[in-house]
Amino acid sequence: MEGQMKVIIKAEAGEGAELSEMKIPQIGPKDVLVKVLATSICGTDYHIYSWDEWSKKRIKPPYVMGHEFAGEVIEIGKDVTAIKVGDIISAETHIVCGVCDLCTTGNAHICKDTAILGVDTNGTYAEYVAIPESNAWKNPKGIDPAYLAVQEPLGNAVHTVMAGEIIGKTIAVVGCGPIGIMAVAVAKAVSAAKVIAIEVNEYRLDLAGKLGADILINPLEEDPVKRILEETNGLGVDVVAEMSGNALAIQQALKYIKLGGRMSLLGIPTKEVSIDLANDVVFKGITMQGIVGRKMYDTWFQVKGLIESGNLNLEPIITHRLPMEDFKEGFELMKQGNCGKVVLYPNNEILDNFRK
Amino acid sequence: MEGQMKVIIKAEAGEGAELSEMKIPQIGPKDVLVKVLATSICGTDYHIYSWDEWSKKRIKPPYVMGHEFAGEVIEIGKDVTAIKVGDIISAETHIVCGVCDLCTTGNAHICKDTAILGVDTNGTYAEYVAIPESNAWKNPKGIDPAYLAVQEPLGNAVHTVMAGEIIGKTIAVVGCGPIGIMAVAVAKAVSAAKVIAIEVNEYRLDLAGKLGADILINPLEEDPVKRILEETNGLGVDVVAEMSGNALAIQQALKYIKLGGRMSLLGIPTKEVSIDLANDVVFKGITMQGIVGRKMYDTWFQVKGLIESGNLNLEPIITHRLPMEDFKEGFELMKQGNCGKVVLYPNNEILDNFRK
Amino acid sequence: MEGQMKVIIKAEAGEGAELSEMKIPQIGPKDVLVKVLATSICGTDYHIYSWDEWSKKRIKPPYVMGHEFAGEVIEIGKDVTAIKVGDIISAETHIVCGVCDLCTTGNAHICKDTAILGVDTNGTYAEYVAIPESNAWKNPKGIDPAYLAVQEPLGNAVHTVMAGEIIGKTIAVVGCGPIGIMAVAVAKAVSAAKVIAIEVNEYRLDLAGKLGADILINPLEEDPVKRILEETNGLGVDVVAEMSGNALAIQQALKYIKLGGRMSLLGIPTKEVSIDLANDVVFKGITMQGIVGRKMYDTWFQVKGLIESGNLNLEPIITHRLPMEDFKEGFELMKQGNCGKVVLYPNNEILDNFRK
Amino acid sequence: MEGQMKVIIKAEAGEGAELSEMKIPQIGPKDVLVKVLATSICGTDYHIYSWDEWSKKRIKPPYVMGHEFAGEVIEIGKDVTAIKVGDIISAETHIVCGVCDLCTTGNAHICKDTAILGVDTNGTYAEYVAIPESNAWKNPKGIDPAYLAVQEPLGNAVHTVMAGEIIGKTIAVVGCGPIGIMAVAVAKAVSAAKVIAIEVNEYRLDLAGKLGADILINPLEEDPVKRILEETNGLGVDVVAEMSGNALAIQQALKYIKLGGRMSLLGIPTKEVSIDLANDVVFKGITMQGIVGRKMYDTWFQVKGLIESGNLNLEPIITHRLPMEDFKEGFELMKQGNCGKVVLYPNNEILDNFRK
Repeated sequence: MEGQMKVIIKAEAGEGAELSEMKIPQIGPKDVLVKVLATSICGTDYHIYSWDEWSKKRIKPPYVMGHEFAGEVIEIGKDVTAIKVGDIISAETHIVCGVCDLCTTGNAHICKDTAILGVDTNGTYAEYVAIPESNAWKNPKGIDPAYLAVQEPLGNAVHTVMAGEIIGKTIAVVGCGPIGIMAVAVAKAVSAAKVIAIEVNEYRLDLAGKLGADILINPLEEDPVKRILEETNGLGVDVVAEMSGNALAIQQALKYIKLGGRMSLLGIPTKEVSIDLANDVVFKGITMQGIVGRKMYDTWFQVKGLIESGNLNLEPIITHRLPMEDFKEGFELMKQGNCGKVVLYPNNEILDNFRK
Repeated sequence: MEGQMKVIIKAEAGEGAELSEMKIPQIGPKDVLVKVLATSICGTDYHIYSWDEWSKKRIKPPYVMGHEFAGEVIEIGKDVTAIKVGDIISAETHIVCGVCDLCTTGNAHICKDTAILGVDTNGTYAEYVAIPESNAWKNPKGIDPAYLAVQEPLGNAVHTVMAGEIIGKTIAVVGCGPIGIMAVAVAKAVSAAKVIAIEVNEYRLDLAGKLGADILINPLEEDPVKRILEETNGLGVDVVAEMSGNALAIQQALKYIKLGGRMSLLGIPTKEVSIDLANDVVFKGITMQGIVGRKMYDTWFQVKGLIESGNLNLEPIITHRLPMEDFKEGFELMKQGNCGKVVLYPNNEILDNFRK
Repeated sequence: MEGQMKVIIKAEAGEGAELSEMKIPQIGPKDVLVKVLATSICGTDYHIYSWDEWSKKRIKPPYVMGHEFAGEVIEIGKDVTAIKVGDIISAETHIVCGVCDLCTTGNAHICKDTAILGVDTNGTYAEYVAIPESNAWKNPKGIDPAYLAVQEPLGNAVHTVMAGEIIGKTIAVVGCGPIGIMAVAVAKAVSAAKVIAIEVNEYRLDLAGKLGADILINPLEEDPVKRILEETNGLGVDVVAEMSGNALAIQQALKYIKLGGRMSLLGIPTKEVSIDLANDVVFKGITMQGIVGRKMYDTWFQVKGLIESGNLNLEPIITHRLPMEDFKEGFELMKQGNCGKVVLYPNNEILDNFRK
Repeated sequence: MEGQMKVIIKAEAGEGAELSEMKIPQIGPKDVLVKVLATSICGTDYHIYSWDEWSKKRIKPPYVMGHEFAGEVIEIGKDVTAIKVGDIISAETHIVCGVCDLCTTGNAHICKDTAILGVDTNGTYAEYVAIPESNAWKNPKGIDPAYLAVQEPLGNAVHTVMAGEIIGKTIAVVGCGPIGIMAVAVAKAVSAAKVIAIEVNEYRLDLAGKLGADILINPLEEDPVKRILEETNGLGVDVVAEMSGNALAIQQALKYIKLGGRMSLLGIPTKEVSIDLANDVVFKGITMQGIVGRKMYDTWFQVKGLIESGNLNLEPIITHRLPMEDFKEGFELMKQGNCGKVVLYPNNEILDNFRK
């Protein structure tokens, strides 16, 4: 397709981003061109927007931001076989090599040669985006595209919560940003015995409650170790879903996790964390596991199955819907933390349709 | 404790059972004496009552029937340490050796030297029953004892449904007797993507629907293979929970189970089943696994956690509550299949309290 | 590459095959052209050669037979990226769709749209063969190509033996054709506690002994159920690797398998097998699992690791090496069963080099 | 049994221990009295002997030291059923509650109420020791009691190495004290692809080589990160068995462990360890798991099976055999690290018999 399109561009090294125009991308033989229906703001996008230390090392401006999205396929490359024009797709955002020993043994999500859509390539804060066919996830039709867009971070939550036994177990979700509240929803949907949400921001803690958390703890107001041991007969929780990346929160979690428990870490600490391995890991028989992305594509099928079950309550997760032009308002919400998922719409008609 | 008590006794080889009296049992040093609050009728009890081929070989009358129950501990043996007078307990009904290689590696449920409460020993259709401490499962207080009694068969359902992956998977529950409908409830509670119930008895099929089954199939009225393939895009179901023991039903299930699928078999076929191993098991990469009892005590903790989650809908499962004296009415219900769980009460006051 | 090449062709429906010539195949953009160094005879090849019932339904002559092989890449398609000219490759023989839900979740080995090299496509009994890049397995250099060729069936053995716990377990390998004896070698290499080989052909039973089987049983001469129970303190074996496809052998194995044991079935029964599911599967808590091909590519990496360990004794497995022209002698050996692996060489120089 | 016996007693708070005499212990109804044939020195014993910080908090002198042993049962309590007089036993040294949720779900090895034989109770550096029946592990007869004694630490090695996939994997064993060298032996026996031993003491590094380690690294002489990446095509090792408790060694291991790898930690750091969770755990998808004791009794059966396989090379592990009276020489060896396992004999005749 020829023509110009609206995009949000990270134009240069430094804080911020700007609305701009560029050519609609040309696709290769194995790519699909997608008209973006809805695209949501990830915490990673906010890191890039605010130009943190990590961004300075990783990001090469100028490029188009964004990676969580749903859209309609409007053109396919000549070697594309599984995707058709008209399909409604989301994207697995890890673009992997496909041939290494990790990719060929079910571990593509940790492929060494991973490029991330909207981080290392032009992304989805745009009217159109080009995606490799092998990264396109075909959705059923007739579903709110905002829900389809958030499947990608929902996959992170599913990957974390389901990285070990969870049915009938007690779980603490540490950090209730958008992925944390989704982890709460997932844990409730699969019948965790008790779901404990821990978060310093009251808006987000309240959201965790709306998604079904049984116990809400603001660690600024009470000692989470003491409270959780009280709530669990002194035994602690079976599972910790670590979404905060906060050193103190991790250290505390190792105190209130049960003997033999599992801590799945998705949150990214900004510096080294001092851990009492002897008392908190070895003697307790604890398992700590780093969680990366989503299993390709086991996690996507789990997400699909969970949605089909009808038990997953996604509605409260999407708190704000904005025209793409108002992206600065979206990033401001992310900064303050007073939001769940913020969804941007490149096309106002779609947003208006939804509002009706 | 001294004195006489009411019991339902299998007095002799042959059909039926009778109300009788006998001495309250004396307990050994590691036993507890329990006042029965509620005791439910198991399919096995009906086999014994109707004196089928299996019963003729296994049962040695006279003895007291019954094994699913909840009761209050009123006396403890001198070496009992973990159970106290006043505790409300249910029973794991497999009384195992505790020292063999299976018992000492988490597989006590398949111990070769298993005696079954109310099958090989005097059971719970009685005012009082003696139980080894190691078989007593301590319950929280304040819960309807009928729910506590059915934890034992609920454990069978949980063991079957959770014997492999289930979250977000499609499952067919084949045979919707009491354990089958509990399997439906469990599968719904843990967010199976789709739960398909298959049953010839319309009353029970209807119960499966009340417990949340998404699709109801009466194989007398339609071809389950055709229907299930239609409902699953021709792929079939991920999981089969086989509760029927019916040869044709098992053969059909192997046709509509997905490549790589899991069939967990709890139902007991009465004769050999002819299986097309090449086409239905080997080439399809199917796993068939025999399920016995409940894992001791992993399954009991799973049951506990599921109940705590609040997602498990037990209410429709208990369809009939009767004074123990009316046990013949209970067995008649079991014969016709027009029931879920039938609960007997040795003490009419408890039943009356419930009815209020 | 242009020119003619020697091949063994299944020319028409009916018994046999013949030496012939045809054009060297042209490759597509994602294929590699390979000069065959060594190619071994699979049981499946013998079924096709002898034109059994299965072959009549599946095979469409004329076509080139053979699929187990090693060769040198002499030409690559324009879209090939991971394989280079000069690489020594073997082939995963399942050519799969790559996009279905099984292929995208680590279960490509049971993809519904599988074509098999040398069964559904022209194969490796030829001087040259064209292979999709995605099916090429790159080998280290300097290894006897006969060993590289047998990695494919060795993968079947590894997939079967390692489909559950095996270290320190007792295992019965039922049927000691080439894959059976490889299963013996694998079980020994990973420290199974005791390896029991069962086979009616004395030549092959003897081979099993050479590969380290601790106990050899010819079921024509003694009752395997009685013997195995004697050898295992009456408990039976933990694992059965079923390679025979023989109904009686399977029924016997279900009698001497331990409570809670695992039976992994790779052998293909030619008709339905009558199974006492109640007593032999359900009450015993047995798991029966169909094994198909090799996990793509987890099993290949396991094979590679086992070879690297130096513990795997492959030498006695290859019993015959023949010029490709003598293929009829090879099939006669397969018919009589007096062989391990029979390897054919399209190029006599390579065979001669080996013989020196 | 009445009478006096020789013991090695930790008489008071402070360094050292002394040879003494005390009454032969009386046994309770569920205990067995065992004549000690051989007892080996554990690193924990050395910590107690040298009176380190941990010992000061945990140990309550006076008491008899020692817990790794083999002996002959000479008397049994009246409620003992599975053990007979004349049995040759070793001991699982974790004496657990048996009734908590961990003990009843296959996790007794991390029971909160664990007492350790020879740490919290009188131990095996004695002519006789009393053991609870439930801690007695019955051995086959006719085996060198020194080998039977070291099954307990061998169980630690097995538990660590087999805490995840190991067959065909590369493994680094970090720290080659007695349990480390046993880990090397276990990894070789189960066909790890490559076994890398890391140790600062040359005597022990040499022992690791004798037990089959493929690569020996002294981190005082070369950079283990650089070397291991070189030896593994830049990918790193699949598994780390952490036996050193050394902070730097753990940090290095997180650098040379492969993406998606497993680190099983048995070594006990003496202080907190600073970990780059973001880069070394989360982004790499690493699993770190604390290993405690031996699974009761799954690990013991694994040890038994491994020994039965004949693949496990135990002979080089026992480097010194001493009369119990020479225990100070044994502890001096442990201090300098120039030993594998040191075995003490309370009865000189047994030692003399062995020497013949």
